[in-house]
Amino acid sequence: MKLQNDQFLRACLRQATDHTPVWLMRQAGRYLPEYCATRAKAGSFMGLATNVDYATEVTLQPLDRYALDAAILFSDILTVPDAMGLGLSFAQGEGPKFEKVVRDEAAVAALAVPDMHKLQYVFDAVTSIRKALNGRVPLIGFSGSPWTLACYMVEGGGSDDYRLVKSLMYSRPDLMHRILAINADAVALYLNTQIEAGAQAVMVFDSWGGVLADGAFQDFSLAYTRRVLAQLKRSHDGAVIPRIVFTKGGGLWLPEMKDLDCEVLGLDWTMNLGTARRLVGGEVGGPGKALQGNIDPNILFAPPAHIATEVHRVLDSFGQPHTDSTTTGPTHIFNLGHGISQFTPPEHVSALVDAVHNHSRQLRQG
Amino acid sequence: MKLQNDQFLRACLRQATDHTPVWLMRQAGRYLPEYCATRAKAGSFMGLATNVDYATEVTLQPLDRYALDAAILFSDILTVPDAMGLGLSFAQGEGPKFEKVVRDEAAVAALAVPDMHKLQYVFDAVTSIRKALNGRVPLIGFSGSPWTLACYMVEGGGSDDYRLVKSLMYSRPDLMHRILAINADAVALYLNTQIEAGAQAVMVFDSWGGVLADGAFQDFSLAYTRRVLAQLKRSHDGAVIPRIVFTKGGGLWLPEMKDLDCEVLGLDWTMNLGTARRLVGGEVGGPGKALQGNIDPNILFAPPAHIATEVHRVLDSFGQPHTDSTTTGPTHIFNLGHGISQFTPPEHVSALVDAVHNHSRQLRQG
Repeated sequence: MKLQNDQFLRACLRQATDHTPVWLMRQAGRYLPEYCATRAKAGSFMGLATNVDYATEVTLQPLDRYALDAAILFSDILTVPDAMGLGLSFAQGEGPKFEKVVRDEAAVAALAVPDMHKLQYVFDAVTSIRKALNGRVPLIGFSGSPWTLACYMVEGGGSDDYRLVKSLMYSRPDLMHRILAINADAVALYLNTQIEAGAQAVMVFDSWGGVLADGAFQDFSLAYTRRVLAQLKRSHDGAVIPRIVFTKGGGLWLPEMKDLDCEVLGLDWTMNLGTARRLVGGEVGGPGKALQGNIDPNILFAPPAHIATEVHRVLDSFGQPHTDSTTTGPTHIFNLGHGISQFTPPEHVSALVDAVHNHSRQLRQG
Repeated sequence: MKLQNDQFLRACLRQATDHTPVWLMRQAGRYLPEYCATRAKAGSFMGLATNVDYATEVTLQPLDRYALDAAILFSDILTVPDAMGLGLSFAQGEGPKFEKVVRDEAAVAALAVPDMHKLQYVFDAVTSIRKALNGRVPLIGFSGSPWTLACYMVEGGGSDDYRLVKSLMYSRPDLMHRILAINADAVALYLNTQIEAGAQAVMVFDSWGGVLADGAFQDFSLAYTRRVLAQLKRSHDGAVIPRIVFTKGGGLWLPEMKDLDCEVLGLDWTMNLGTARRLVGGEVGGPGKALQGNIDPNILFAPPAHIATEVHRVLDSFGQPHTDSTTTGPTHIFNLGHGISQFTPPEHVSALVDAVHNHSRQLRQG
């Protein structure tokens, strides 16, 4: 089925677009009353994520409200360690928790790439969402990065200081490398199976890469993101499958991410998009990375006129995207620098999406 | 009284030293059993900080255990807003809380630079500690940065997402600028009074500058750090008073901090010290900033042999400090990239301090 809106996929591949495509991390989420209603029916977050009909319903909800240019699978970054048997749950109003943690030699020895049948609910959701989208916009699949998964597997949940996972990393790097190698192979298999099920792009969320020290980031996060990328399918059903890597807090390491085997780099709001473009965006006709990001989600608490002003600033910091339809060049996919807050007024999201589309069309007219 | 160990002050001024001086953020803290004993006597954190004898006692405790090259006033970064009447307290095992918050026009209008008499306990502690040190090592005074104080004043305590302070900043930048201007003038007066009381260097902790978006950091944090620096005394009693600015998560903005009117820039562990040296460290005989940092405090949970290895990595990443005693040049002050964890085994700190001194002496021998 032909895509009615291919702006996102074109931008991923550094092809010229009519406007700057936009989607929002966690766009199907608690800030939407219709999401809360579906979640109430499902009973719990995992009840929602594991039910194909509910997952499909909430994935499409933001598309009915806003002129978004992509959909993203409704799921969690931690489904893979859950399938490894660690027992993921979400208490009401709290972050993820694992029943079992991985902190010693025995727990590490017991880890293995999980049977993908345990994640069948995810692949079924991908197929169902893709069908329900009916070509409106492309569907993005995703996973947590090997390091980010390891943070939760060792800590057992969120953390302020990453003390336990870093203690293991600094005390027993051999164990940490084993966890990360298994995670990388599991994530690659997981993303490839999402691609086979219908995902048209995939994103690796390295949400906690930025908490690592220089040196440790390269050895314990980036190396395993590379290991994932090396195993990913480049295309499926005759279409190229773009791969997005997002390291929150990773701006300092952008020069080292320039040669990652992926199409798009995601950025948080601390990074200037113009600087990022100079570092990794490439020239018209030459190689480079598409850039995705990076407005502070807290801008959505300001009045709509202020939101538009800040959207213009972010678009202008990237500058004029290339407009030559005969070749590739620097492109920008608009997004937040982190997931949208549950407290966001839903009508403010319209202001953001519309400002992106309007101003980016003006930019293209010079 | 002549200093017996002036390595820290020399390094701040980019003068050659025999070894790389080292001190640790939050070195007088809960990881030390003797600190916990004094705190128990004081009854509360603020009871400890406001009692001159106790504050003196805990400031000196880490110097009796470790060969540290500087002492830092035992206090909190939030004493200034407390003196503004916001009511600072620390519940057992939790972060700081303010009784009153600053979130609307009326609360902002009521803010003013506090009478320094309300902070007399801090200045008395500085004088007392300086006397008790008796010239062993220099004493560092400090304050939170205007932006970091504003985060707590608006949020009322710590935050995961800085939603309230950023909402105010994006919605009512006029109010935020007013808060920051008052904070800057208050911080400058506070640090100058610490200098008059005996502080031999001062440090501005911009602990939360790194949560800001590019653009917002420059306008709402850096501009007000500049306003503080512009008002600080350059010398006292014939001695130059070095000024240290530490923005956690600020590595991306290091080029913009190059021309700050201060002597030392603090760095967290995400920044490569060799890169930082190239960007702002300057050449022998030329201008530049001394660099302070930046090992991950979580390294202190590893066995001592691993700690030494990581200390060597950090020292080696800075490289050979200049050794020409006739001029100034690039220097490094070893520190953590953030405060020491309360869970740190105290004997591991000895391993770190000794590794810094030993390896940095070897480095100087080429």
